Amino acid sequence: MAKWYFEDFELGQRIALPPIRVSPEEIVAFAREYDPQPMHIDPEAAARGHFGGLIASGWHTAALMMRSLATWFREAEVQSLGSPGVKEMRWLTPLRPDVGYAGHFEVRELRRAASRPMGIVGQSTVFADPAGTEAFRVAGIGFFACRPEARA
Amino acid sequence: MAKWYFEDFELGQRIALPPIRVSPEEIVAFAREYDPQPMHIDPEAAARGHFGGLIASGWHTAALMMRSLATWFREAEVQSLGSPGVKEMRWLTPLRPDVGYAGHFEVRELRRAASRPMGIVGQSTVFADPAGTEAFRVAGIGFFACRPEARA
Repeated sequence: MAKWYFEDFELGQRIALPPIRVSPEEIVAFAREYDPQPMHIDPEAAARGHFGGLIASGWHTAALMMRSLATWFREAEVQSLGSPGVKEMRWLTPLRPDVGYAGHFEVRELRRAASRPMGIVGQSTVFADPAGTEAFRVAGIGFFACRPEARA
Repeated sequence: MAKWYFEDFELGQRIALPPIRVSPEEIVAFAREYDPQPMHIDPEAAARGHFGGLIASGWHTAALMMRSLATWFREAEVQSLGSPGVKEMRWLTPLRPDVGYAGHFEVRELRRAASRPMGIVGQSTVFADPAGTEAFRVAGIGFFACRPEARA
């Protein structure tokens, strides 16, 4: 299979990502390490609280998005060179255990870097539950290598 | 000790956070799970690559920031009610293993919610290496409970 370079992105392109699904045990394990608040680590307290049950830490949701992106990068041999950051990130509805969230990556901006053989891709990555309700939305920026023949 | 409510935040207030420090083993373990790219999981490939050594996944850096924030929340009994998202997040320089990064939380915006007994705090959270070079900067938004006597 051919590698995926900056030149393979197109404005408006929408790429389906591997879905996110997380178990209650994973939610608790991540949160014990990084975000030990009751709604993430204590199923009983979470059931009594504002969210009516255990929900993933927003930073766990973000990490699960990265897992999905990294799986696509590996499977499609996407020549990612990392990221300088994200423009905006929204936790719209809670990520709940044992639910599959479908995702996509949409290309919003394409710009060739002046100083290095790479391009900058502005993108919107979204995950939604089976009813189509968005749970998580990120406007991110990524760096991707140019095709070798385009590097001169 | 008194609990920390929305009313305890002040514009411009700067709160020191527990420092971030991560081992190479933790960098690799997180990245194997969520962001298995060579610069995060393979010390030899990382040494030969653009960054000259192993660096933490940006999402690991974000999770470590949350650990630091959650430690402050617990120690100061900060009445956090979660977050709708972040406005901007920048990975400015790589987070490297076995380096201590000092952090602070700076209050940038304070707004009382109209519909619930809580306030919205716009903040900037920054971590910098021992030379003062910023590694990570987030402009975030948080919800915090109002004092019981202010809820009427």
